[in-house]
Amino acid sequence: MQRTKVAILGAGFITDIHVESYHRFIPEAEVVAVYARNKDKAKAFAEKYHIPQWFDNVDELLQKSGCEVVDICLPNFLHAETTLKAAKAGKHVIIEKPLAVTLEEADAMIDACKKANVKLMYAEELCFAPKYERVRHLVKEGAVGKVYMLKQAEKHSGPHGDWFYDIKQAGGGVLMDMGCHAFGWFFWMLNNAKVKSVSASMATVLHGGRTQGEDNSVVIVEFENGVTAVAENSWAKHGGMDDKSEVYGTEGVIYADLFLGNAALAYSKNGYGYAMEKADTTAGWSFPIFEEVFNQGYPHELKHFIECVQQNKEPLVTGELGRAVLEVIYAAYAAAGQGKKISLPFHAKVDRPIDLWLKP
Amino acid sequence: MQRTKVAILGAGFITDIHVESYHRFIPEAEVVAVYARNKDKAKAFAEKYHIPQWFDNVDELLQKSGCEVVDICLPNFLHAETTLKAAKAGKHVIIEKPLAVTLEEADAMIDACKKANVKLMYAEELCFAPKYERVRHLVKEGAVGKVYMLKQAEKHSGPHGDWFYDIKQAGGGVLMDMGCHAFGWFFWMLNNAKVKSVSASMATVLHGGRTQGEDNSVVIVEFENGVTAVAENSWAKHGGMDDKSEVYGTEGVIYADLFLGNAALAYSKNGYGYAMEKADTTAGWSFPIFEEVFNQGYPHELKHFIECVQQNKEPLVTGELGRAVLEVIYAAYAAAGQGKKISLPFHAKVDRPIDLWLKP
Amino acid sequence: MQRTKVAILGAGFITDIHVESYHRFIPEAEVVAVYARNKDKAKAFAEKYHIPQWFDNVDELLQKSGCEVVDICLPNFLHAETTLKAAKAGKHVIIEKPLAVTLEEADAMIDACKKANVKLMYAEELCFAPKYERVRHLVKEGAVGKVYMLKQAEKHSGPHGDWFYDIKQAGGGVLMDMGCHAFGWFFWMLNNAKVKSVSASMATVLHGGRTQGEDNSVVIVEFENGVTAVAENSWAKHGGMDDKSEVYGTEGVIYADLFLGNAALAYSKNGYGYAMEKADTTAGWSFPIFEEVFNQGYPHELKHFIECVQQNKEPLVTGELGRAVLEVIYAAYAAAGQGKKISLPFHAKVDRPIDLWLKP
Amino acid sequence: MQRTKVAILGAGFITDIHVESYHRFIPEAEVVAVYARNKDKAKAFAEKYHIPQWFDNVDELLQKSGCEVVDICLPNFLHAETTLKAAKAGKHVIIEKPLAVTLEEADAMIDACKKANVKLMYAEELCFAPKYERVRHLVKEGAVGKVYMLKQAEKHSGPHGDWFYDIKQAGGGVLMDMGCHAFGWFFWMLNNAKVKSVSASMATVLHGGRTQGEDNSVVIVEFENGVTAVAENSWAKHGGMDDKSEVYGTEGVIYADLFLGNAALAYSKNGYGYAMEKADTTAGWSFPIFEEVFNQGYPHELKHFIECVQQNKEPLVTGELGRAVLEVIYAAYAAAGQGKKISLPFHAKVDRPIDLWLKP
Repeated sequence: MQRTKVAILGAGFITDIHVESYHRFIPEAEVVAVYARNKDKAKAFAEKYHIPQWFDNVDELLQKSGCEVVDICLPNFLHAETTLKAAKAGKHVIIEKPLAVTLEEADAMIDACKKANVKLMYAEELCFAPKYERVRHLVKEGAVGKVYMLKQAEKHSGPHGDWFYDIKQAGGGVLMDMGCHAFGWFFWMLNNAKVKSVSASMATVLHGGRTQGEDNSVVIVEFENGVTAVAENSWAKHGGMDDKSEVYGTEGVIYADLFLGNAALAYSKNGYGYAMEKADTTAGWSFPIFEEVFNQGYPHELKHFIECVQQNKEPLVTGELGRAVLEVIYAAYAAAGQGKKISLPFHAKVDRPIDLWLKP
Repeated sequence: MQRTKVAILGAGFITDIHVESYHRFIPEAEVVAVYARNKDKAKAFAEKYHIPQWFDNVDELLQKSGCEVVDICLPNFLHAETTLKAAKAGKHVIIEKPLAVTLEEADAMIDACKKANVKLMYAEELCFAPKYERVRHLVKEGAVGKVYMLKQAEKHSGPHGDWFYDIKQAGGGVLMDMGCHAFGWFFWMLNNAKVKSVSASMATVLHGGRTQGEDNSVVIVEFENGVTAVAENSWAKHGGMDDKSEVYGTEGVIYADLFLGNAALAYSKNGYGYAMEKADTTAGWSFPIFEEVFNQGYPHELKHFIECVQQNKEPLVTGELGRAVLEVIYAAYAAAGQGKKISLPFHAKVDRPIDLWLKP
Repeated sequence: MQRTKVAILGAGFITDIHVESYHRFIPEAEVVAVYARNKDKAKAFAEKYHIPQWFDNVDELLQKSGCEVVDICLPNFLHAETTLKAAKAGKHVIIEKPLAVTLEEADAMIDACKKANVKLMYAEELCFAPKYERVRHLVKEGAVGKVYMLKQAEKHSGPHGDWFYDIKQAGGGVLMDMGCHAFGWFFWMLNNAKVKSVSASMATVLHGGRTQGEDNSVVIVEFENGVTAVAENSWAKHGGMDDKSEVYGTEGVIYADLFLGNAALAYSKNGYGYAMEKADTTAGWSFPIFEEVFNQGYPHELKHFIECVQQNKEPLVTGELGRAVLEVIYAAYAAAGQGKKISLPFHAKVDRPIDLWLKP
Repeated sequence: MQRTKVAILGAGFITDIHVESYHRFIPEAEVVAVYARNKDKAKAFAEKYHIPQWFDNVDELLQKSGCEVVDICLPNFLHAETTLKAAKAGKHVIIEKPLAVTLEEADAMIDACKKANVKLMYAEELCFAPKYERVRHLVKEGAVGKVYMLKQAEKHSGPHGDWFYDIKQAGGGVLMDMGCHAFGWFFWMLNNAKVKSVSASMATVLHGGRTQGEDNSVVIVEFENGVTAVAENSWAKHGGMDDKSEVYGTEGVIYADLFLGNAALAYSKNGYGYAMEKADTTAGWSFPIFEEVFNQGYPHELKHFIECVQQNKEPLVTGELGRAVLEVIYAAYAAAGQGKKISLPFHAKVDRPIDLWLKP
């Protein structure tokens, strides 16, 4: 079996998930190097996962690690810069959501990868989550007739890392962090249908002391094909992760729930170690999730990309889709800022998307 | 026990529910007469429920039936006219949703009842549904901290009566018919907080051949107290009634489901008689509801009104609340029509609310 | 409306439930007196519920209260003695489960009520619980074909009162306290079919320091009509009340859950007042039940009995059914004690049923 | 990566599952040959899955295929004979449930593999199903205190293949086919605790025209450590597969549901292709399962065995456990036949376990 050499960039929460996926489910890949901005963190990560090389300098990694693929799990503001370097070095790129902070960055990244003839995949794992993929296939089989409404919600009580709360690094709040999942999944379900307009409501309800970013948002996306889509996202929702999708068609409906609906149901008087992402407590009733990484579709996603690299195929989830998601994010911030529906295509020259809400 | 004399106006689906409620749960009331526009229907209804008098003329009923209360379960376009007559005749009025077709009618009704010194109650049963009232009390106890978001959804595959589909009689589609539940419940949960703005998305996705009205809508209501509320309503959703509410607070969350979540879960190879309102089939898996009338809060609602009449107390759910709901409906149609957030207070002179969407 | 005069005997947990039922849902009844062994408790209970008379002497109550009905909510060991007195005084009797401690007592009670020409109703509320009655009607409609298996489970973490743990007062442990619900419901569902045999497994797993009684039991009942029935009962199950029933037929299946399945789902960081019977905590996730008394069928049960008294009809749930339940309890203790299936009819002369397990 | 050569014996329902598991999740294994009794079936299976060799003669396969492992997915009556041959040929053996038809066969198989120094693994996939393994780890962490009761249920409407219904080939009915899952899981959860006694109730309720075997059974197993375990199994339950486990401890409880509890919830007016194993229909409401093979633990199970072979480790689920399961099956049939608890150790000389019920 041919093994593709992967360098992981980042050493945070999501990087653990990627490495677990490679190690347990993707024998076709070999993680050969890890990069973190902090030298000790890079080293510790490499040791924990038996990764042979570690770096605290991206350029050095690109030159020396021998990797064919870079898997970018860095904070948003580093996405564009790192992708451009990787493309220049001739490496294939898979990049965590959101694609970039600005539309200009997104365009530059897509362009650079094309010119360098390297693959660029936008790592939207909801496009691979097994339960949601089951739903998509049901819809394709005609189970619910013609789709007229989609809903997607992802909610928890706030991210792990500090940078998420700093809008200069992140570009926005929960919409930037988690709204992108909903938008990406809408495009995926609707075969990249065109968006007609976006309406949005946003607020900072729980983390006002820590961030200027919104921590609760509701966005309505109207597509040109007549489908209405509703995205709900929150960093203010206690009780563990919620990730739900709903499909409404003229002949039926499907509800799918990745966490509560997959979990066992437990009552523990004194609690235990871990229930699911962001569960504050495990005492009393809880919903202990299982195979959390698999059930969110990370292995399926990463395996797909390695296959694309090995067989020279185009990734199904493209940089263009990532850019389209970012355009909806722009439109949603603008809609919330201006208090009206924003029609697409939409573009505005800003340093970060959230400025469209904060300084409308 | 003193028994208050009630005349029922209407003989359709909702009237059955009111009469079952009076008969089984409200010994303090006595249904003495029924009115229907169709003579035979009035008579048949009276016979079915052992109601001593029946009328096909409202004026005659008001003069002769000896009723103290009229319970109006007529199509929307008759709400104002009938209420004005009842008030003039000195009868207390309880009226099914929505309060009226236009804001002008609503104002006239409230005014007339005040002048005639009769009680006017807006019959929003969600304010009495036992599971939702349990939720409201949990919130008041502080179970979820400060509320920042509410959601309410009511969906099925379309109403029974023809007049619902005729926008001249109904004034609008599913928003008029079922959106009013969500808005009424929002005001109830938030102690009549003021609305700041309304955004909306609407479409006719299933019943286009039968109605000009919208049969699917999503509305975002922003309150002045910072709460965001989302109303989802549909006449296009198969598989039986859905009625769900969610409360999000800074220290917790509550999900409540009136139908699927109360029901038993049954698998029947060949089906059986009745599962729940609007269930297309009972073969295969189904969710058979129980004590459907009680669990929706009708007895609690009607009992409350009879108590108000007997003890001369003000109803908790007022004509003013019904008017406020109608104002949100106006704003929602306008928002959908103009593609922007509509700020409240909002008023427009129209024949029916839906004109704000159809002819923006 | 004619009002039947009821005297309540007892002032514990279940008595609150009965009085709430009478007051809210049964205008045809009037609670005229309460008895408790403890004078202060009787007085306090009467004051709390505005009951005009209170007694600490049963004979006195029977002579002076003017009641037509006695509603017996006393500890098991007082059931027979009190029923015999009531019958002698010409009062109708409704009695909480189990009917009696011994089969001899049961026979004497049934006999005495017949001779005195007073009604005796065995208060098995599961025969009236709305969700379970919905299930029974579905089965009668043929929804699941021919029934071949029933399951009923009732579980919590142990009763409120001390006397439940004293086998001299209670006659046994959880089987006596809660197994009777399952057996009563089996007879109800199967139209008083005859039992062929009983197998059982019992243990004291949590309350060994406090009781000699079993606090966990599993009983298999085989009926002559070929139906297998499984009763699971526990005083050792944390996390609040569980009450579930399942029906298996040749053409379908029905699952019904009275508590978790009716409840809202709440997450509360710091908890709130009350979730459901026996819920240890309300912090974290919980299942807040609503209309708990109604949903368990108490009003329906008591209303039925008052109707029987007023209209001189035979109660549907008879003393004979209560006796048949007790016979199954005897057989179950014997089966657990002897380690074999016990065939019915079964009788053994013991002071209390649990002796058949403890001293086989 | 070293790849272990596997020969698959059988070409039925379960064989598809094993091959999907090897191909998608176990790169360490290589399926080199397939055997089926029917030549055409063997060939078709090989072609479908791109397996290079196919055989209709086991001896030939053992000599020529070059396999290191045989994976036996044949009807029960062939288990012993095939295992003995494989051991003799020096092949490692992994074998589908139940281990064998008789205890004598089981002993011979264990003995033969030991003498031949080949590994024998009993393929109980519930010991690897991710949700159940999550539950087991929660219990080990102390989430529910000391376990006092286990429940396991597996039910559907009857197997695919004809041989299951022929007690000469299968040795029994649903207890043999699916009860073994429950018993295997009990031993697994309780660290191979010793069984004290077994009680059982059996009946043929749906498939009486097709089989002499029981198609519904309830078995109570009492362990020496004081744990009570209840196994429910059925071939008479409509509406698709049910596989549920429950753990009751002195400080909590865990409920886990492999099918309904993992599935999406769909309503489809006209139905679609496939919902889950044994779902009769997909019209109306259904529970579409996803990653069915993974969620039942097959890949985890087979991967474990390949690792054992490659690293010369003892499989965690042994032939001895498979034998212990068979002993409980014997005892359960005897208990049902004799109508009493059967104490273990238990042995009886019979041609097939079900004889202990049919001819007690």
